[in-house]
Amino acid sequence: MMASCDPAAATGSLSEEFAAPAHVEEVRSAMAAFAEQHAALGRMVVLITSGGTKVPLESRTVRFLDNFSSGRRGASSAEYFLAHGYAVIFLHRHRSLYPYTRLYTGINLLDCLTLDTVQVGTKIVTVDQTKLPNITEVLNRFQAVKSAGLLLPVEFSTLSEYLHLLKAAAQALSSIGSKAMFYLAAAVSDFYIPASEMPEHKIQSSNGPLQISMKMVPKILKPLVKDWAPKAFVISFKLETDPSILLERARFALNTYKHQAVVANVLDTRHGYVVIVTKDSQEELVLADEEAQKDVEIEEKIVKNLSHAHTQFINQKC
Amino acid sequence: MMASCDPAAATGSLSEEFAAPAHVEEVRSAMAAFAEQHAALGRMVVLITSGGTKVPLESRTVRFLDNFSSGRRGASSAEYFLAHGYAVIFLHRHRSLYPYTRLYTGINLLDCLTLDTVQVGTKIVTVDQTKLPNITEVLNRFQAVKSAGLLLPVEFSTLSEYLHLLKAAAQALSSIGSKAMFYLAAAVSDFYIPASEMPEHKIQSSNGPLQISMKMVPKILKPLVKDWAPKAFVISFKLETDPSILLERARFALNTYKHQAVVANVLDTRHGYVVIVTKDSQEELVLADEEAQKDVEIEEKIVKNLSHAHTQFINQKC
Repeated sequence: MMASCDPAAATGSLSEEFAAPAHVEEVRSAMAAFAEQHAALGRMVVLITSGGTKVPLESRTVRFLDNFSSGRRGASSAEYFLAHGYAVIFLHRHRSLYPYTRLYTGINLLDCLTLDTVQVGTKIVTVDQTKLPNITEVLNRFQAVKSAGLLLPVEFSTLSEYLHLLKAAAQALSSIGSKAMFYLAAAVSDFYIPASEMPEHKIQSSNGPLQISMKMVPKILKPLVKDWAPKAFVISFKLETDPSILLERARFALNTYKHQAVVANVLDTRHGYVVIVTKDSQEELVLADEEAQKDVEIEEKIVKNLSHAHTQFINQKC
Repeated sequence: MMASCDPAAATGSLSEEFAAPAHVEEVRSAMAAFAEQHAALGRMVVLITSGGTKVPLESRTVRFLDNFSSGRRGASSAEYFLAHGYAVIFLHRHRSLYPYTRLYTGINLLDCLTLDTVQVGTKIVTVDQTKLPNITEVLNRFQAVKSAGLLLPVEFSTLSEYLHLLKAAAQALSSIGSKAMFYLAAAVSDFYIPASEMPEHKIQSSNGPLQISMKMVPKILKPLVKDWAPKAFVISFKLETDPSILLERARFALNTYKHQAVVANVLDTRHGYVVIVTKDSQEELVLADEEAQKDVEIEEKIVKNLSHAHTQFINQKC
């Protein structure tokens, strides 16, 4: 059994404690083909992870531990990377927010449609454009990205799926070296229950209060940076609720994993303030009130900053 | 502090350990007005609960315990109750499946739209009907329900919100007596962490493995049946993964809470087989393969069975 407190253990097989999804090889091939095709055309490729992870508490799962994440940051960042000319692999939690479509989240589709009879027997359904603001512009952008094949969506739900698919992505992108960016915005669980310690059936409430004992998830960032994609430009995210420990935690992560940058943010202010921490620098990005009123998003600034840094990183390698 | 292992404790105030949502009084008034208006028109009213509940592990929540539930059973049942002439209060988990709209879940809205230029400067967006099967029929039904005001949606996310809103619903429906049905299909957590024992900030993974100790949630069904809505027709659901304990658990619930029926089902077979357990009977409802192929749903049978039993229940009371 894997010594799960030792981050280095993740360099070994993930498969003992974390079951691999059946389609992992198929997804790996699709990601490799996508990356090579776009790199050959001179494009940079970003792998974005987005959304939370589910950690089952029972083998036939009824209950699970989850992490808060709508996937907003990952989905909006994908749009800005596309605008900067990147091809995007969007590794996201099932049903978390999706690029472009996210702008209409929380709107009931059927509330926005109108039924018109054009002639007897022919009905068309049209969109009430007042209910879906900017729909023609957004639809244009979405269709342009789709027809150019610039966005490859890959879904996960559980922590196990996330770990295996991220490893597969790192291996798939290794062939394009420094042209690959990893933008690890997903909110990944730090804790899990090993399959070997999980009850098979639904935990009965008649057994009394519940004690859950969870192990620490191996830090996949270490083998990703060191072994799987050593030439890539790697960005991790650090979310805290306590601002006083944020920068210290971000610097600790950077020193431990030796990657290129940490985007540090606090839960309450994450849509208006982040700090981009690198080995040699610390840059605050702030969304001014008047920008927020104009629907400017902080992800636009994050992506601008990091895509610039990525270009410099590539040029230094050449 | 509430003795949370004692189901009777729920008859007291929920507010010590479970914070009430700010809008609970407003929702209670809306539900009471809705119920009285429809009962006055001779309609029966069903309160459907649907979806899972979130149980926060931290006060400024990053992590939470969740229950598996897409909300499919609640959302489809709502449609069949509407078809049977009921007015429906749909108390559902935020972002769980919604009546009618559920039929298009998992479809990306933007994939289904086409941009047409009618004349210079005027663009219309139309729905590609091959991507949204039966959309004209479904839209007709949705709009008829909406314009008749037959569906009142109310949202919850956390366990606390669910408990307070269900209590408010029970009180709001008490004035219509036996014309009210409670159809409690939501997957509610059995366990929670009291606010007083919750850490304020995100749990640090650097502190080592995680021990979670959870109390049992008070059984709200007891005060609901006994005190809040004693004249109503109340249906609970029992989901198990182990078929061998299902009926025993269902009968135990019925004996404990003295309500009218339990819909008993097993996780793996829940879309094709349920048992409706009452004090004097036990009826199996099965979806045949040919029915499943024709998109018949087991909720149609459940709702037909229960609405018939509800009518008998009302007549016995008269």
